[in-house]
Amino acid sequence: MEKIYGVVMAGGGGTRLWPLSTSKKPKQFLNLSGKETLVNEAIDRLAGVAQELFIVTNAAQAQEMLEQTAGRVPQDHILKEPAARNTAACIGYAAMTIMKKYGDGIMIVVPSDPYIRDEEGFCRTLREAAAAAEETDALVTVGIRPTFPSTGYGYIKNTALEGKIWRRVEEFVEKPDEETAKRYVKEGYVWNSGMFIWRASTILSWFERLLPDIYACLERLAEGFGTKDEESILWEVYPKIPKISVDYGIMERAEHVLMVPGDFGWSDVGGWDAFDALKERDENGNITVGKTLLLDSRGCTAYSVDRLIAAVGVEDLIIVQAGESVLVCPASQAQRVKEIVETLAGKGETDYL
Amino acid sequence: MEKIYGVVMAGGGGTRLWPLSTSKKPKQFLNLSGKETLVNEAIDRLAGVAQELFIVTNAAQAQEMLEQTAGRVPQDHILKEPAARNTAACIGYAAMTIMKKYGDGIMIVVPSDPYIRDEEGFCRTLREAAAAAEETDALVTVGIRPTFPSTGYGYIKNTALEGKIWRRVEEFVEKPDEETAKRYVKEGYVWNSGMFIWRASTILSWFERLLPDIYACLERLAEGFGTKDEESILWEVYPKIPKISVDYGIMERAEHVLMVPGDFGWSDVGGWDAFDALKERDENGNITVGKTLLLDSRGCTAYSVDRLIAAVGVEDLIIVQAGESVLVCPASQAQRVKEIVETLAGKGETDYL
Repeated sequence: MEKIYGVVMAGGGGTRLWPLSTSKKPKQFLNLSGKETLVNEAIDRLAGVAQELFIVTNAAQAQEMLEQTAGRVPQDHILKEPAARNTAACIGYAAMTIMKKYGDGIMIVVPSDPYIRDEEGFCRTLREAAAAAEETDALVTVGIRPTFPSTGYGYIKNTALEGKIWRRVEEFVEKPDEETAKRYVKEGYVWNSGMFIWRASTILSWFERLLPDIYACLERLAEGFGTKDEESILWEVYPKIPKISVDYGIMERAEHVLMVPGDFGWSDVGGWDAFDALKERDENGNITVGKTLLLDSRGCTAYSVDRLIAAVGVEDLIIVQAGESVLVCPASQAQRVKEIVETLAGKGETDYL
Repeated sequence: MEKIYGVVMAGGGGTRLWPLSTSKKPKQFLNLSGKETLVNEAIDRLAGVAQELFIVTNAAQAQEMLEQTAGRVPQDHILKEPAARNTAACIGYAAMTIMKKYGDGIMIVVPSDPYIRDEEGFCRTLREAAAAAEETDALVTVGIRPTFPSTGYGYIKNTALEGKIWRRVEEFVEKPDEETAKRYVKEGYVWNSGMFIWRASTILSWFERLLPDIYACLERLAEGFGTKDEESILWEVYPKIPKISVDYGIMERAEHVLMVPGDFGWSDVGGWDAFDALKERDENGNITVGKTLLLDSRGCTAYSVDRLIAAVGVEDLIIVQAGESVLVCPASQAQRVKEIVETLAGKGETDYL
């Protein structure tokens, strides 16, 4: 069995959990489960499958990442992005680093922010995916068996391969409307988890073939590796890498993409409406964290960091108190929090962000 | 013309504006208009009619009252209630104090918390009421000409008296339902303002006749006046005065009660739903105070003391941030804030109150 490298992508701003997540304390540094921060949970989980761990994060957060992860990952395994250039750049940078500095092997790439209930199931699925990547040299992803017809996730159309655990990816499809989501679930589509498993040399050859501009940039980065110019080349080249997601740039265009289905209580904590994964609702259908008093209220999520949230007679609201801000929005419009963040940014009110 | 004494009743806890009003900062000490605190506005307004001013407040707040009113009222004109015993006790104590220490005269008694837009109109109406009290020796109240069929105020049924500005009170009626309120407005009923005008000796004789138990207590207080035992008698007797409002105890039972109609932009800032009197709504029907950002929201009152309140997609909500607390409730249920206050008190969470 080849060496398995684990790569945690932890560069996001995570504005969808504002005001709990801010630029100073992005989502990956939040402790939502009451146990550990999202990034540490992601690392610890991945350590069950991978022998060597990397984190890709933005350069501004690298020092805090080192402190927050408290020895989980060696300093030189924290890869710094001088600018956010979407997932293709991030993954290409990690793949080139592994290839040139540590040697070829199977890479498991995971985002830092999903919540995963069954860690053993997670590791088992990723071991199956790593075996698939090793055996077939294909690009492999993990598909989550839907527990409900979510309109918040992308889906993967797939077909069985005789005698194999893994399945063939037919198509990646965007977040559907409710009717379409129901049909997808019925027809055996799975949720797109954003986790990728492949050989480092394999993904790099797909970069070379499908994203030659990005590949050229990655080669320039590699020229600097181990030299005194490594840092300056990184800062010069990285910000110019074309912005594209690995989904659009490679996964949807490559041939022979495989998918290993998983069923380990996965959910993307993508916004305030996704807290059901983390906390049970009480008898009134409310989720409460911190000091709260909800009288005659139903279907609310109330999250208080250091004040009292008191409400009476409200329904289906999200109420959050954190830092210098209070957020109120209907549960069904939780994704609109980004409009607030954008408006504040546009007004230069960065103290609140 | 007799001497006119002004008496401001400022003893309330004012929980209906929680969390802005708290036990440490009750409603009368709030500056809602952006100009002065409610109690100072009440004093300054009354100074336009009365020659000598008194405040009745609870003993625990007396020191702060002295500081907050900053020389508006001499220290010995701040009457301390050792316990809250409703308005009959409060008014009887003031009347007895005035009668025995300063001499008979016309008393104007006003609560500290209504908002009044037209101060000149207020003074003119009270001068008319004082003239009525002087000429007829009746108990006089001010009735507010309704601007809409409010279900939040009590009403006064009344009939005209030939050649007089004042009218005869036929009946005090409770807060009505909406249908009844419409009928009241049509039939010329006025809002009960809780302002009273009468001769000190006259109201005391009504106490003697209708509330003899309270009158006996007031006589015991008077025995202490000017002696070294004044304070100790006050603390012994006052907490035992029967609790009854002057409305129930006297106004609804006395004969020949008069009413002077007024029209000076009066509103009782009785809760978060009453802010229309203080602030214009913006083009989306929102009232905002402090740092707020309301996106695609309508009919809300957002009041922030020192944090940002950000909301998106909400309607007809009251959102308040003050001190250690955040309040959220529907505008139509603003009066239920007292349920929150009562629940917190019941749990011993007095830090928030």
